[in-house]
Amino acid sequence: MTATASHAFDTDTASTRLGDHEYGLEVSDRWKSFGGHANGGYLIAACLQALRRELPQPDLLSASAHYLRPGSVGPARIRTEIARIGRRTGAGQAVLTRDDREIIRVLATFTDFSAARGRTLVRNEPPSLPAPDRCVDPMAALGATPGGATIGEQVEFRVPELPGFWRGEPGGTTTVDCWARFTDDRPADPIALALLVDAAAPVIFDLGVPGSSTIELTVHIRRRPAPGWLRCRIATNYVIDGFHEEDFEIWDSTGSLVAQSRQLALIP
Amino acid sequence: MTATASHAFDTDTASTRLGDHEYGLEVSDRWKSFGGHANGGYLIAACLQALRRELPQPDLLSASAHYLRPGSVGPARIRTEIARIGRRTGAGQAVLTRDDREIIRVLATFTDFSAARGRTLVRNEPPSLPAPDRCVDPMAALGATPGGATIGEQVEFRVPELPGFWRGEPGGTTTVDCWARFTDDRPADPIALALLVDAAAPVIFDLGVPGSSTIELTVHIRRRPAPGWLRCRIATNYVIDGFHEEDFEIWDSTGSLVAQSRQLALIP
Repeated sequence: MTATASHAFDTDTASTRLGDHEYGLEVSDRWKSFGGHANGGYLIAACLQALRRELPQPDLLSASAHYLRPGSVGPARIRTEIARIGRRTGAGQAVLTRDDREIIRVLATFTDFSAARGRTLVRNEPPSLPAPDRCVDPMAALGATPGGATIGEQVEFRVPELPGFWRGEPGGTTTVDCWARFTDDRPADPIALALLVDAAAPVIFDLGVPGSSTIELTVHIRRRPAPGWLRCRIATNYVIDGFHEEDFEIWDSTGSLVAQSRQLALIP
Repeated sequence: MTATASHAFDTDTASTRLGDHEYGLEVSDRWKSFGGHANGGYLIAACLQALRRELPQPDLLSASAHYLRPGSVGPARIRTEIARIGRRTGAGQAVLTRDDREIIRVLATFTDFSAARGRTLVRNEPPSLPAPDRCVDPMAALGATPGGATIGEQVEFRVPELPGFWRGEPGGTTTVDCWARFTDDRPADPIALALLVDAAAPVIFDLGVPGSSTIELTVHIRRRPAPGWLRCRIATNYVIDGFHEEDFEIWDSTGSLVAQSRQLALIP
């Protein structure tokens, strides 16, 4: 199965070319996070889909996004700029605006992973998890999509045990291993991984905090992912004066690390 | 002791205002990395010093840099752009060029740490190290600055044991705990931390690789650092097809995490 326009991810991240380096995007209501704003990973992915049209390298390698304002559903513009096109990598930026107000600004570098030929040495193991059908689906356990988070209808997770906050009993656990995939079976690719690293509920919800606003998110893609369920490892180790990082690793069905991200966020 | 123009860091990262959002910088020969190019952390710091002039928030919170070309010594331009100034944070970008060719592009968000009032919960310990005077100074052990790396004269490190590659015998260790400070006793501040997270030799040199070129570096500042020696934890866990990340944590003399960075780099 390959990605097609019939998948929600492809439909909703596609923008229309309006002119040189100028695109129109309809921010979809299908990717809202807890709290009801457009999910940050979804907005990054839409920016990257526009930028990719202007670079010869096919694969996202690294993207860094700074979040300026919450994103809402409706018409938006994406303005792109190419910084450099080299033999091995190409880099540029994309700025997404609503009503001329900046929502996010993204820098990204692309490459061609099929030409990557260097050394491999991995000093870690993929998360060890029971099979997906022996895990819990948090959405099914809850029986409803919480807090307007429609993204829960597009991306599904499986956890060995339901974190306490899903039952209204925050347990103080700030690391979670889980499975993830698109609910419509759309296979992941590098740009889709940039969405998926921001698609889960923040693990610090299990501290009983009321929310978390992303300030910056960087994702590095380490390989093109193989099809199938993805293994994820999510961790927050430092909450300092209200600011916290969240690290997110994604491993594919062949056991290879495919994405690694960190975001800095603020508890409101 | 406070930072002054007499410190190398301040002298060499200061730029001259040439016009609206336009600065002139002399890229100094005192911050060259292994290989002889201007150190990436030094170039980020120079960009951030320019950007800071245009934002009301005093403290760097998060900076993301994409590296486009190696930086060489000599006259450069920095072009800044403000993305948003809010109550709590301000964000903008800086592009450093030499002869109209982009060297690095940086997005950054600033805040005022003195107004940060949220929760603190730290699930990790600072690196445990013998006192600096009971550790080894790699530069002194070597008796010379290797590979044109003049940055070794500006930033000093102390390690419990000299990694094998310093003796020409790579030992395969890709994690290092060490002490760091400016050699002229200049106290660290948030922008100086953005330099320090890129000032050490890449830990993967102990794999016997010939070099490492940064593609992207993001640093989050977690608190204003207290004066004194800084504890560092450096680790690479994933070398995949020639690409590798390097994680760098800095803890201050009060035992607080003050900076956390990750870079993605390529072994040539």
